[in-house]
Amino acid sequence: MSSDQDSSDQDGGLLSPVRAGTAAETATSDRAWLRAMLAAEAALARAQARAGTVPPEAAATIGRVADAFTPDPADLAGRARQSANPVVPLVADLRRAVAETAPEEARYVHHGATSQDILDSAAMLVCRETVGIIGADLDRAMATLAGLAETHRHTLTAARTLGQHAVPTTFGLKAAGWLSGLLAARERLRDLRLPAQLGGAAGTLAALGGDPTLPALFAEELGLAAPPVPWHAERSPVAALGAALTQTSGALGKTALDVILLTQTEVGEVAESSAGGSSAMPHKRNPALSVLVRSASLQVPVYGQLLVTAQLAEHERATGSWQAEWHAVRECLRLTGGAAETTAELLAGLRVFPERMRANLDLTGDRVVSERLATLLGRDRLERAAAQEEPLRRTLAGEVPDEAFDPAGYLGAAQPLIDRVLTAYREQL
Amino acid sequence: MSSDQDSSDQDGGLLSPVRAGTAAETATSDRAWLRAMLAAEAALARAQARAGTVPPEAAATIGRVADAFTPDPADLAGRARQSANPVVPLVADLRRAVAETAPEEARYVHHGATSQDILDSAAMLVCRETVGIIGADLDRAMATLAGLAETHRHTLTAARTLGQHAVPTTFGLKAAGWLSGLLAARERLRDLRLPAQLGGAAGTLAALGGDPTLPALFAEELGLAAPPVPWHAERSPVAALGAALTQTSGALGKTALDVILLTQTEVGEVAESSAGGSSAMPHKRNPALSVLVRSASLQVPVYGQLLVTAQLAEHERATGSWQAEWHAVRECLRLTGGAAETTAELLAGLRVFPERMRANLDLTGDRVVSERLATLLGRDRLERAAAQEEPLRRTLAGEVPDEAFDPAGYLGAAQPLIDRVLTAYREQL
Amino acid sequence: MSSDQDSSDQDGGLLSPVRAGTAAETATSDRAWLRAMLAAEAALARAQARAGTVPPEAAATIGRVADAFTPDPADLAGRARQSANPVVPLVADLRRAVAETAPEEARYVHHGATSQDILDSAAMLVCRETVGIIGADLDRAMATLAGLAETHRHTLTAARTLGQHAVPTTFGLKAAGWLSGLLAARERLRDLRLPAQLGGAAGTLAALGGDPTLPALFAEELGLAAPPVPWHAERSPVAALGAALTQTSGALGKTALDVILLTQTEVGEVAESSAGGSSAMPHKRNPALSVLVRSASLQVPVYGQLLVTAQLAEHERATGSWQAEWHAVRECLRLTGGAAETTAELLAGLRVFPERMRANLDLTGDRVVSERLATLLGRDRLERAAAQEEPLRRTLAGEVPDEAFDPAGYLGAAQPLIDRVLTAYREQL
Amino acid sequence: MSSDQDSSDQDGGLLSPVRAGTAAETATSDRAWLRAMLAAEAALARAQARAGTVPPEAAATIGRVADAFTPDPADLAGRARQSANPVVPLVADLRRAVAETAPEEARYVHHGATSQDILDSAAMLVCRETVGIIGADLDRAMATLAGLAETHRHTLTAARTLGQHAVPTTFGLKAAGWLSGLLAARERLRDLRLPAQLGGAAGTLAALGGDPTLPALFAEELGLAAPPVPWHAERSPVAALGAALTQTSGALGKTALDVILLTQTEVGEVAESSAGGSSAMPHKRNPALSVLVRSASLQVPVYGQLLVTAQLAEHERATGSWQAEWHAVRECLRLTGGAAETTAELLAGLRVFPERMRANLDLTGDRVVSERLATLLGRDRLERAAAQEEPLRRTLAGEVPDEAFDPAGYLGAAQPLIDRVLTAYREQL
Repeated sequence: MSSDQDSSDQDGGLLSPVRAGTAAETATSDRAWLRAMLAAEAALARAQARAGTVPPEAAATIGRVADAFTPDPADLAGRARQSANPVVPLVADLRRAVAETAPEEARYVHHGATSQDILDSAAMLVCRETVGIIGADLDRAMATLAGLAETHRHTLTAARTLGQHAVPTTFGLKAAGWLSGLLAARERLRDLRLPAQLGGAAGTLAALGGDPTLPALFAEELGLAAPPVPWHAERSPVAALGAALTQTSGALGKTALDVILLTQTEVGEVAESSAGGSSAMPHKRNPALSVLVRSASLQVPVYGQLLVTAQLAEHERATGSWQAEWHAVRECLRLTGGAAETTAELLAGLRVFPERMRANLDLTGDRVVSERLATLLGRDRLERAAAQEEPLRRTLAGEVPDEAFDPAGYLGAAQPLIDRVLTAYREQL
Repeated sequence: MSSDQDSSDQDGGLLSPVRAGTAAETATSDRAWLRAMLAAEAALARAQARAGTVPPEAAATIGRVADAFTPDPADLAGRARQSANPVVPLVADLRRAVAETAPEEARYVHHGATSQDILDSAAMLVCRETVGIIGADLDRAMATLAGLAETHRHTLTAARTLGQHAVPTTFGLKAAGWLSGLLAARERLRDLRLPAQLGGAAGTLAALGGDPTLPALFAEELGLAAPPVPWHAERSPVAALGAALTQTSGALGKTALDVILLTQTEVGEVAESSAGGSSAMPHKRNPALSVLVRSASLQVPVYGQLLVTAQLAEHERATGSWQAEWHAVRECLRLTGGAAETTAELLAGLRVFPERMRANLDLTGDRVVSERLATLLGRDRLERAAAQEEPLRRTLAGEVPDEAFDPAGYLGAAQPLIDRVLTAYREQL
Repeated sequence: MSSDQDSSDQDGGLLSPVRAGTAAETATSDRAWLRAMLAAEAALARAQARAGTVPPEAAATIGRVADAFTPDPADLAGRARQSANPVVPLVADLRRAVAETAPEEARYVHHGATSQDILDSAAMLVCRETVGIIGADLDRAMATLAGLAETHRHTLTAARTLGQHAVPTTFGLKAAGWLSGLLAARERLRDLRLPAQLGGAAGTLAALGGDPTLPALFAEELGLAAPPVPWHAERSPVAALGAALTQTSGALGKTALDVILLTQTEVGEVAESSAGGSSAMPHKRNPALSVLVRSASLQVPVYGQLLVTAQLAEHERATGSWQAEWHAVRECLRLTGGAAETTAELLAGLRVFPERMRANLDLTGDRVVSERLATLLGRDRLERAAAQEEPLRRTLAGEVPDEAFDPAGYLGAAQPLIDRVLTAYREQL
Repeated sequence: MSSDQDSSDQDGGLLSPVRAGTAAETATSDRAWLRAMLAAEAALARAQARAGTVPPEAAATIGRVADAFTPDPADLAGRARQSANPVVPLVADLRRAVAETAPEEARYVHHGATSQDILDSAAMLVCRETVGIIGADLDRAMATLAGLAETHRHTLTAARTLGQHAVPTTFGLKAAGWLSGLLAARERLRDLRLPAQLGGAAGTLAALGGDPTLPALFAEELGLAAPPVPWHAERSPVAALGAALTQTSGALGKTALDVILLTQTEVGEVAESSAGGSSAMPHKRNPALSVLVRSASLQVPVYGQLLVTAQLAEHERATGSWQAEWHAVRECLRLTGGAAETTAELLAGLRVFPERMRANLDLTGDRVVSERLATLLGRDRLERAAAQEEPLRRTLAGEVPDEAFDPAGYLGAAQPLIDRVLTAYREQL
């Protein structure tokens, strides 16, 4: 394939700017997947050398050749059609490459393994790498949010339910709320158990000498978890991965959605730092990064659904749902990764406008504290007062103490709640 | 509402036989949800009595009245439209009922709470109850599977990949595979943390006296987990619930799918005990229960997706996605519950036909051990031999020892793998 | 089943207020489905009488008995588990009931048909009825929108992109935009072709005398379309139904979403008429109906997805995906129906505040016409001017004609575009 | 961008072999999308030249420069993040390129348009091209199926419901069933209306001179449909596209699923021509192409769901759901395209084994005609006979005519049904 064909038939983030140029994009590229598959082949040979079923020199050769091997993804993709997976042509090429160096060692390539052993293990390697990247971006985002929660712990703003001002809150508590969502996602990602896969043709390890300890050696070589039994057709690890990434993208999307709502022209309580002005419409402060994050959080759940549906695998190997997993795993990873990196960037530059928050709070003429006034005056009196056009403090002057109208005095447990989230944040560091 | 209206506008399991008449159906009925909402109101009053903000007698009255209160679900449903949730009319009715007994205590009903406090807490109560039921049915199913794994640990059968015989395995290992999926699901359900919800109008606890310790008292009264902060708009508990139930339904569906495939006329290796013959077609052994389980496992993932999508909640209360959660939570619970109960029944009656397994294994004329023969003879020789129409043991007579053709001798680590799953099963009991 | 059991195990709209008490709810109840199944049995006998394979008197008896027959849905649901569908026990009961009247005619009940013939045909009957109801509600909603488009064709408001004021538009054009979405949905529903189903055990019509003309007679009796061949396992009619209803719910949801955004405290350009004030927070004007509509539009797409996925049906009858269709069809119908009825109600009472629209338009100090000013003055000059805090008409006084600042003068083709939508609306009446 | 970067960050079909190297893949590449965007810019200038608002020479220059322009997708993708879409940087580059040739004409690039005008129109161009490709592959697949239906119109095989032999049918009718699904999909694709998009900043055409006739000129230049009004936030065209492609992938997936089931070792009634033998397991005839097709049909529905969900667009431009559409449109197109091309290949090489069909039909000892025997003998007699182990023709010898046991005599309307499908196929040619 010429370089020209290469670029015409391959795709970057043009239609997916949320992950364009991000670290997660690179970590999940075709090339990254191929490197992971080759790493799995090399690790298999090393594990077998440790078990005594492959000569150590052969394992060394395979490792060396695999390391230097740079197959053409598009060529492999085309040849993958015949066997419905890319490992078959990759192994053929790798075996040929090893044979060129050491003909007698070629037969130890992929010895006793099945394609799914390699592809599943490679997927888990790609996951480990990308989940690490996502975690680091979550950490950056959370550090910023912890700062916002602290800095704005007393910054008054309206809490909104169904789009309506409900009662006063503080922007610090709002930021703490976002932080609590990211904390839950971070914990979920930390709990993920990413197992290696090794079972041979149908999970009995027969061609692998029937050695039940080999999978653990293999997992050790890869730095992955050792599963009790092969999971070719028991896809809970993939379902759990999809669920964790979906939850993460949801927590990021919740934050972005609130930012979008807060940047509306009429609200204007925050702005993205780089808020891209249109040259023709210089007043516009488009929340571009938030929009990208939200676009990711709308997409990831459908991939997550594909991954849980893939549990319905036939017998010892699924007929189609396994193939449907691959791209979905990649998209879950790189969209969530893109969203995490973008959110970290977005929050780092977030501009907060406390005066505007205060001004908005005043829009309803003290009605934002009406829950409190109702407690003091009874519902009937309040309703009659609220029906007037003027501020309640004028209508109700003298009936309740002046400070009853102060939103700052009706914040409930805002401060201890912020503290709880900050404590939880610090404890997990 | 007359009894006639009742039945014309309400729906049972007619279109959802997988859960018709199951314990999960009862545990998730409209009436069960209402009971849970009333339990939440009573628990709130008790918690506030402990905190000293509600007179103990009022809490007692509210508890008594709530306990005896049997509102009409359809009436509440209609009145729920005005406020977009059923708690508003329920509270109005409950308050009126309390007022009839003790007028001065009516104002302590739902004191300082918001509708979402009650509905979310009620949902978690319904979940706890139903997840308990699901767990018990999983336990029954797993006990049967452990028995099958033990009994058939040496029963030869074909492992199948892409629908083709691959290598020999045993039916015991197949059953152990199903068991390992259920074990993973069981663990996931056990790990679920179901939190109470209490935050007041917008999560600051302002109308609840700003008392940050009240939510924990409330949670204690309900036997639910105490969340660090209100989660009105941080929906990870619901997302996690959806993910756990989806995984469970997937593990059940995988088992059912394999049973469906094994009962095919041409395969015939197992049968459902009650396998409903059509009277006109008495040879038919429809895998009806498996079909029902599979139907559930196809539906639950879309509800699970709804639940994770609901993380995108606006500000302090979502505008629509919270409302979209309710039915999805119910369906996740009762479809998974129906699938669990149905699977337990299906497995308890499963008939296994080892002779048919053996006969099927012989269909390919020893080619099921060709992986082994290739190791012994080389690929070229094997391919030439396999191209003959006759059994390999005839073509290759004398070239390899007779026992090389015996599938029972090519089972790899089947026995220790079965043992691992059985050990894991026993350890979690 | 006692009335008590009835209410404890059956469910109305408590968790789905968007459809509680709506006509679509009644049209899709268990009882409605049963009536449709019985209608299908009666129509089958009539069609066979016309074809000469069933005695006319038997057809008449079956029709009479079916008409008067009121089976208990919950009982049938329980018995449906054995055969994985409710038609088997229903036919048994109907046959028994006919036998009580005319023993020799009982064998003509369900003569030569398969359960799927009856259930699929019944589903299409339920669809026809409910789609009719939905259409009528769309018509009401569209009439209101046409009125709003006309009345407010000159009412200035801000067009918003990414939440930011972009350029001026009119509220009439906004209403016309909503109308155009409903028009497209209405057309899609009108184009739906709802076929009867008749094929016998596996679609060959063998037990139906091999008569290829019988399905058309049957369809005629039911007032449904006659399909060229049985569609037991070719589910495009169901997929198309799901797609049409999803599109409809999406168009309704788009309208509701905009109303939710326009009712935000800071925006306040419209309000729902009944906007339910919280008694404790009398300033709140919750867009409750819009929230309900939106909740439906979030749910319908996942059911729609289930319906298209059901195309993957095995051989001559699916093993699970058919069963998964039933509830999804019902939910698509009644959620879309609930959303349509609710939207009609919402729009009929919508209050529009032109002064608030105008006030919001002025928030950006003429910057809403900056696209036009950039054309007149060049981008550089505009950007410098826009960077000032003051209104552009002050900064740029004298550089452009005064009328350049008037949003009413920068409405482009708003009027002809409104006219186009209104014309399309009138033409389809 | 160096060639090395190119391959490391961009992705081909490695994880999606169903579309690797297919025409649909090329037609939907990043480069194809960019070409379509540039074509839209050129067409806009030509349309404006026809309307008299852009000098013809400028339009010609823009067309020439756009035609020769080959931007780097990855670079644009990165720069797209700032504005949340790739059109902004593309227009900047194109304007610069035009300015290099004719500085005074640069301002006519993208004159009065908004990014969404270009991206939506480009998407529709990509759709038109790819839907054409898909249609051609469906035509090839349908021609093969029509041949199979004709050739095998009398080839006996078992109709299967819930995996069980039900009654006899012919393989020709089975092929006709697949054909009827593809015919319905083909018609749906033909009915698609792909509109151009032109509305300016917020759909009023204000910066486009308020000329309501310009969109039709633009559409004509592009060969797309002219929409009555801009559809920036009325996404039914995209929803309809998703639905049509989902239906198509479902019809293809149904065919592939049946082939997978028919190739099972125990069934063996058909085989893929290239059925890739594993070298180690030469007996295996993996239905690799069918597995790929099925993998596509499992994925497309989730993208289709994303596309219908995107109807929930805020105001005059969605905040995230529009961005979520782009990749989903591409995947719908190229997965369905890959599935169509793969199915055409699969069917062209399908090997059919009538003897095996006949042998399977005999597996149940005449019980495949028990529906007929029940009609002749009554259910009681049949059930007693069927309980015997031996073939029914032995047990029932003399009780019914010999020909009653012949499956070929119980095919109902198989022949006229085949004819109907073939007629429908020929009529649409």
